[in-house]
Formats: sequence, structure tokens, C-alpha cells
Amino acid sequence: MTVHIALDAMGGDQGPEVLVAGAVAAVDERADLEVTLLGDESCILDSLRRHDLAPGDRLHVVHTTEVVGMDESPFEAVRKKKDASVVVAFQLQKQGKVGAVVSAGNSGATLAAAIRSLGRLQNIARPGIAGVFPTLKGPVVMMDVGANVDCRPQHLFQFGIMAAAFAEVLFGTKRPRIGLLSIGEEGGKGNVLVKKSHELFSQSPLNYIGNVEGRDTFQGDVDVIVCDGFVGNVCLKLSEGLAEAMIAMLREEISKNFKSKLGYVLSRDAFASFRKRVDYAEYGGAPLLGLNGTGIVCHGRSNATAIKNAIAVAAQMVSQNVNEHLLQLLKKAGGVSPSADEADAAGEGA
Amino acid sequence: MTVHIALDAMGGDQGPEVLVAGAVAAVDERADLEVTLLGDESCILDSLRRHDLAPGDRLHVVHTTEVVGMDESPFEAVRKKKDASVVVAFQLQKQGKVGAVVSAGNSGATLAAAIRSLGRLQNIARPGIAGVFPTLKGPVVMMDVGANVDCRPQHLFQFGIMAAAFAEVLFGTKRPRIGLLSIGEEGGKGNVLVKKSHELFSQSPLNYIGNVEGRDTFQGDVDVIVCDGFVGNVCLKLSEGLAEAMIAMLREEISKNFKSKLGYVLSRDAFASFRKRVDYAEYGGAPLLGLNGTGIVCHGRSNATAIKNAIAVAAQMVSQNVNEHLLQLLKKAGGVSPSADEADAAGEGA
Repeated sequence: MTVHIALDAMGGDQGPEVLVAGAVAAVDERADLEVTLLGDESCILDSLRRHDLAPGDRLHVVHTTEVVGMDESPFEAVRKKKDASVVVAFQLQKQGKVGAVVSAGNSGATLAAAIRSLGRLQNIARPGIAGVFPTLKGPVVMMDVGANVDCRPQHLFQFGIMAAAFAEVLFGTKRPRIGLLSIGEEGGKGNVLVKKSHELFSQSPLNYIGNVEGRDTFQGDVDVIVCDGFVGNVCLKLSEGLAEAMIAMLREEISKNFKSKLGYVLSRDAFASFRKRVDYAEYGGAPLLGLNGTGIVCHGRSNATAIKNAIAVAAQMVSQNVNEHLLQLLKKAGGVSPSADEADAAGEGA
Repeated sequence: MTVHIALDAMGGDQGPEVLVAGAVAAVDERADLEVTLLGDESCILDSLRRHDLAPGDRLHVVHTTEVVGMDESPFEAVRKKKDASVVVAFQLQKQGKVGAVVSAGNSGATLAAAIRSLGRLQNIARPGIAGVFPTLKGPVVMMDVGANVDCRPQHLFQFGIMAAAFAEVLFGTKRPRIGLLSIGEEGGKGNVLVKKSHELFSQSPLNYIGNVEGRDTFQGDVDVIVCDGFVGNVCLKLSEGLAEAMIAMLREEISKNFKSKLGYVLSRDAFASFRKRVDYAEYGGAPLLGLNGTGIVCHGRSNATAIKNAIAVAAQMVSQNVNEHLLQLLKKAGGVSPSADEADAAGEGA
């Protein structure tokens, strides 16, 4: 069965060119895929022409006249700009015309548009953003990485369930090991939020392995790391900044003399593989979980590979029905009891 | 004038051997330094003998019979183990026999012992731990990195002042640029704690540059990063874990074939300089700030170089009177108004 994805062609720092290239690569790679590009029609058509392409059976264009900027207030922008590419994209999903939306634009606005059009999944108090990190072994899913900055224990508990469902379906991880991000491995360690969340996880049938620390993130011995959106967003950006700084420092040291430069030339393939391993683009964006639908936010600096991979992940989430799986796990884990007042302020944050 | 430092010779994962080697290197390097080693006397004497040394004018030994383990509850351990090396070390400082204490043991217990013996500096609500990170330019000081997991805005404000005073004295940074760790650069972004702290900093005469994000940490464009002890501790350990994982991944890629291995051999000096740049050992531990005295906690895995550097930093903190400077900055910045009830639970955490 064909999966149909909407791509916000106006999101991201690089302009439509890169986004269109990502969409073209995605339909090239997967025969059961259709992509609708939303944004300025003439821009998109220009970009398609550079690939010797025009809209057709598997690539469609929907013209929109507004764009949400990276620094705009998410909720306000989404409310006011009814013809913004990202807003229309989620409207198409609501109407059943596409199965998922991918955007490299303002991630807060993407989540806000998603919640406005699709709503929350039944019994989910707060949808959030899951981040996928490379580790020495497989990938690890961290949630929330920026949607919900002030959380309650029940929210963290649901983040764990949602991220576990995603890891099970996308990476085939059986009974994902769930860890709670804290500052010590003993259950008694952490702030008030973490201590209370620890109790919820401990009493659940989930494969909860207890507190994990920042240094465990990249070892690959945990599949899901749970934290609030403030801590998660700091972790996400800190990791990105450190990885870049380390690569810059290494490059600086290597270029200091001829011998080490020569050495670098010989090791170039190894460096390329290394960079690929730590490159966010390989993971294709961060899924929005907890929606009554499917969305993925990509890094503003996403290249065509990142967009292609994000579209592939979105297609997989739709065809393998992550949300159905999520609801089953939620029921099994006893996560279905947020009081109504907890379903507030979803999407606040980055 | 001679500076006299107490070294907890029982702290750390490596045993007294490495700690004694650090002390020996420190007194070798700085002629105006004395070090008192606290711990099992026969162990320490054995280690000294391996350096062809015995206690003398500049190296002293104080025998203690108890040790605080890495996993012990800080406050309980410090209360019960009156003859623990770290407890006696701070007693010596209280009696004026040494100017500062350095320990690579349980950092929570070190802070607890420090507060118990020395007390808080006047008008400081919560002493904390400052972490020093390498960046593409100079070092950056992050505070708090683990002492206070649940904070109020006034605490974060004081962390900024304390870390700025430390950066001014230790690194000679004039009017350090202070940033508040958040998830967006605009002042309106962040959790409740950060938003309220932003107001305090904005109204102060400090060189406050606004919110900074995780990715700014390693760019070197901010001198002091303020956060609560939960977020700071996660950042500290995440950075450590990522740096290690990246080095491991790079090593794996390089050892995959002969050509890149040869390249590595040629670039070996560059790699060594690189590792030195990202090595925590170069920064000699994390100062405890806000005490009516001076203490430094070192990484449990500290090698002799890290200990030597920590002793040197402790000596500099004493000889250049960081605390006097801190109190002046506190007064100037208007940070002297924590209500009495805020001086609670100091030292809770890692």
C-alpha cells in the first residue's frame, strides 16, 4: 500500500532546494511512497525542474502563501497564519489526504499545528518530541527533547511508554530498556520530579532499569531515556555542540603540521565513517509522539539525506502503525490515568 | 607566603598511590606549597617511599581510620564517620591548619563535610559545585553541577555571582559574560525557574548576556553558565560520556584497515594534543563555591596530573582570596537578600 507524506517545503534554514532534493531522493528509494510538497509553488517547481522533474503521480505540490519563521511564537503563529505551509500540511493529514507530516521549520510551531489539527492521542496528557541519539551500540530514544518544559511524574511516565513503543516498532527492540535520566543510579537520587517518576516506573510492568546518568546515554545499554523537555532539549543541543567542538578541535590539531595532515589523508575514510556515525542526519529527525496522527520535526540545518531519512521514518511509522502499538502499550503499562487537568499547555517550549 | 593544602588520600577510585603521586608532583612544581595527606598512614608512607620520600617540611601525613565510600549517603556518612579522611581534612581547615581541602572521593560527602565544618559564606543561601569545561576558546565555568537539585531563582542568581568571581580570579576574565542555560535564546524561553532567574539577572549590574543553549557551551562565547544542580550534573556527565564515546567510535573506525591505522600513527601527536584539550584532568577538579573556606572535588578517576592541578587551583583560590572577591561581587550585584528559609538543604544531591 502506498504511503503518502506531506513535506513542509518552506521549513528549515536551507530553503526549498534542499527539501525538494530530500523528497526526490525519498521517492527514488521507496516505490510505495508519495510526497506532497507544500510551499511557494513557483519555488518548488523550479527546484523540481533542476532534477528534470515535474509534479506527477508520486510528487505533488500544494501552493501555500505563508511561512512560520524560526523565531515566531509557535501558538500565535499557528493561530494567525492559516495558510502557512506547516499548518496546511497538518490540515491535509486531518482530511486523510496524507498519512504524516515532515517539517524542518520551527519545531514548536510544528507541534502546535499538529495538536491544533490532529489533537492528542486518546489518554495521552502531553504529546512530545523524541530525539534519537547514536551510541556505541544501537540508537537510543530520548523523550521529551523540547516540547514540555515543566512536567509532572505522569507526563514522564507516558514519555517512557511512547518512546518505548516507537523503539519497538522502528528499531525492532523487544521490551526496550527504559531509564530515567538522573544524577545518580540509586532510585533515591534526583530532583523531586525524578524521584516521583521513579516510583511510577518501578510499579509498572515496563522494562524499567532505573535511573541512568548522562554518561550512560552513549554507551548503548539503555534503549529509552526519559526526561522533561527542558533537560532533554539541553542534552540534545549540548551533544550537538560538543560533537561539533570536538571535531573542530581535532581538525585544528591535525592541521598544525605536515606529518599529521598526511596521517589525516590516510585516515580520511575512517573519519568519514566516524562523522556519519555521529551525524544527526542519519536518524532523520525527531518524531512527535502522542498525536492523533504522525509528524516528524527535522533539524533546521537538515541536508537532503536528513530529509530523505525523515520521510522514510514517517512512512515506517504510518505503515507499521506506531500509534496503535503505543495505545496497546499504554493500556498494558497502566499509563491511562492522567487527570483531565494534566492535559494542559502541551507543546509549550522549543 | 606558603599555602597549605589538605589532600584526602583515601578518596577516588584509584587508591592512595595516585593521590600521593599528585601531591608529590604539586610540591615539586610550586615551591610555596605544603600538602598534608590524610588517610591510612602506612599506605601513605609506602606510597611516599616509592618516590624516595618521607614526611618532611612540605609533605605531612595525618592518620585517619575511616573512609566514606562512593555510594554512601553524604550527610549520614559525614555525621557518623568522625574520623573519615575527608571529615578530618575539613576540621584541619576549620582549625586554620590548612587553607583548603582537595578530595577525589564522594563529592556529596565532601560538600557535606565542608558545610558541616566551615559553614556557608555570609549571605550565601546554597554553596554549590562549579564545573570547568574546555571550549574552542577559553574555559567556561558551569554552576551548579550537582549540589542543589531543586533550586529557586535566587539560588541561580547567586550561582552566577559565585562562578563569575571564580572566573575573574582564576582565569583573569574581566567582567565574565554570564549566560543562563535554557532551551532558546529569547528571554521568554525556558521553564518557570529559568524565566524567573532571567528577570533577576536582567535587573542586575552583572555582565549578563541572556539565555544560552546547550550548543553554546563549547563555543567559548560565554564565560559562566548558570543552571540548577540537576541540569548541570546531567550536562557534566553527558559531556564526559559523549567525549568518551566519540573517541571510542573514532578509534574503532581507524582500526578497521591498515591504511587508516598508518594514518593514525602519523597523526598521533595531534590526537594526543586533542585528548589533552578535552581531558577533565587538565582543569584540576571542580571548586566548591559559597563555603566559608575552600574545597575542591575531583573526579573519582582522577590521575596524578588531575590531582596536581587541583592542588594548584586550590592554592591559587587561597592565595588570591576568591572568597573575598566573591563577597564583594555579591554586594555589588545586589545578591545579598536570600530570605532565611532559602538556606535549606544545601548540599543535597550528587
